[in-house]
Amino acid sequence: MASKQKLIGVDLGGTTIKFAILTTEGEVQQKWSQETNVLAEGSLIIPDIIESINHHLDLYNMSAEEFMGIGMGTPGGVNRADGSVSGAFNLNWDADHKVYPVRDITEQTGIQTYLENDANVAALGERWKGAGNNAKDVVFVTLGTGVGGGIITNGKLVTGIAGGGGEIGHVTIDPDGYECNCGKKGCLETVASATGIVRVARDLAEQYAGNSKLKSMLDNGDDISAKDVYDLAKEDDVLALQVVDKVSMYLGIALANQANSLNPEFIIVGGGVSAAGDFLLEHVNKYFLEYTFPLVRRTTKLKLATLGNGAGVIGAASLVINEGE
Amino acid sequence: MASKQKLIGVDLGGTTIKFAILTTEGEVQQKWSQETNVLAEGSLIIPDIIESINHHLDLYNMSAEEFMGIGMGTPGGVNRADGSVSGAFNLNWDADHKVYPVRDITEQTGIQTYLENDANVAALGERWKGAGNNAKDVVFVTLGTGVGGGIITNGKLVTGIAGGGGEIGHVTIDPDGYECNCGKKGCLETVASATGIVRVARDLAEQYAGNSKLKSMLDNGDDISAKDVYDLAKEDDVLALQVVDKVSMYLGIALANQANSLNPEFIIVGGGVSAAGDFLLEHVNKYFLEYTFPLVRRTTKLKLATLGNGAGVIGAASLVINEGE
Repeated sequence: MASKQKLIGVDLGGTTIKFAILTTEGEVQQKWSQETNVLAEGSLIIPDIIESINHHLDLYNMSAEEFMGIGMGTPGGVNRADGSVSGAFNLNWDADHKVYPVRDITEQTGIQTYLENDANVAALGERWKGAGNNAKDVVFVTLGTGVGGGIITNGKLVTGIAGGGGEIGHVTIDPDGYECNCGKKGCLETVASATGIVRVARDLAEQYAGNSKLKSMLDNGDDISAKDVYDLAKEDDVLALQVVDKVSMYLGIALANQANSLNPEFIIVGGGVSAAGDFLLEHVNKYFLEYTFPLVRRTTKLKLATLGNGAGVIGAASLVINEGE
Repeated sequence: MASKQKLIGVDLGGTTIKFAILTTEGEVQQKWSQETNVLAEGSLIIPDIIESINHHLDLYNMSAEEFMGIGMGTPGGVNRADGSVSGAFNLNWDADHKVYPVRDITEQTGIQTYLENDANVAALGERWKGAGNNAKDVVFVTLGTGVGGGIITNGKLVTGIAGGGGEIGHVTIDPDGYECNCGKKGCLETVASATGIVRVARDLAEQYAGNSKLKSMLDNGDDISAKDVYDLAKEDDVLALQVVDKVSMYLGIALANQANSLNPEFIIVGGGVSAAGDFLLEHVNKYFLEYTFPLVRRTTKLKLATLGNGAGVIGAASLVINEGE
């Protein structure tokens, strides 16, 4: 019998499912992807994943016995007790309808499957093979359509009692702030997600009277994005710089407080908005340094994510090692 | 040879050193204490501890072989790499003078010694035998002269890369707030420690014109304490209630953000100020519920500490089990 030395990582998203076969050292040996078919209330998704894995194992002439396990990242709420998911709205899995990926994939591939939420899986990936340098304590925050995150302490993912661990997007940064989709006010997500940044831009534009291309675009009713805000700020647009400064202050305080509480080696910033790169990081770091106490200021470092979309499959695969211990 | 089934816990404080002998199940079998002699730059403290342990083992007719280890909680900065402490000012151990308790106590008792900072040790104690119910994820905050804390995730203490883990007192709760001893502004400690609560009372009293015993006491120049503020609030003193409300808001937000990030089963509030009991907890809980997102609001609970001063020796002893694994 072959020894169990390989891993499969699956990154389930609303438009694409990514797959990879990795060694236990995290080297990607094969990868492929397919579209997510969300028709029929998303009931085809898990069968599609099973078929794709079994098909590719045949194709590569590999057997289930060669694998330590399958790790999968998913949107929605993960129930770790029964390996189910619910409330993944971009997969058409509604809150009342439970899906059982762990049971189904394990049974129909013959490979033990592990499941975790997508932001946590990306955190594991960045920690293992990305900016995290395999440090024992890493905080990951992803700035995209929403703000997600994952926290790793002493080398283990923090899921908490009900899976809410790492939800940095719902930290309160302004008690009198904007209403959030989650039902409370002043969440980091309301000002630091892609849509949050545009919201801050609209608010500041109302009070701004000077010369600004961003102001003109907003007044024209142009459809602006967070990327536009950062691009204009890089060109010294005064209003755009005000927006970046305000968003950076909120992010700086929120990440400083993660650092003041956990003193991780790295806080890694990823997600679509982080494409603004060093410019984004430098502005956040200014406030991060202001709001960390001296010991933490000297020892916890902000970094940009390095794996991009690849963090998901790699982190998912690492679940097998983490959970299988 | 006797099997190694017992633990020694040492809680080193500025006025008293507490000792206990426990079973590995956490049952206290013997306890004693002695004054801390901080003369001669604190150079007598570690020899005193060693002598006291050896003396009591003789007294109880016990030998070093019966012990799994000694755990000790200490003020100051703990260096986990070399088992040293520095900058424990209430012990007269200054920042430039390193003391090596792990080396010295291990050598001179023949029992392996483990060291951790005092707030972290109290967190371990409350988690193990106090309000924490041995839950895998517990956040502990202690409201005393300062505000300290300890965070346990997946059953392990979070120390971070440089020992700053759990420093909840230095989370920024008001970017424009008071200057803190740590060198930055707006730390939780500046408004929620015993002295911080009095500071908030003085500030609110300046703007308050109505009838209030607290106002009269402050105007008279009486020496008031945090306990006075809570006692008067319980008697419906209007200004005292305003102070309690403001302090509770700060604590509520800070603890809600711990919950939003880590989703622990319990957040335990201890320290001298927590003697205000359920009255304190209910006021904090009002804001805690307002600033936690729904999943966390339903699953993370605030609780009062139950071990009081005993948390230190019990938590210190549990270090042996935690670190010895």
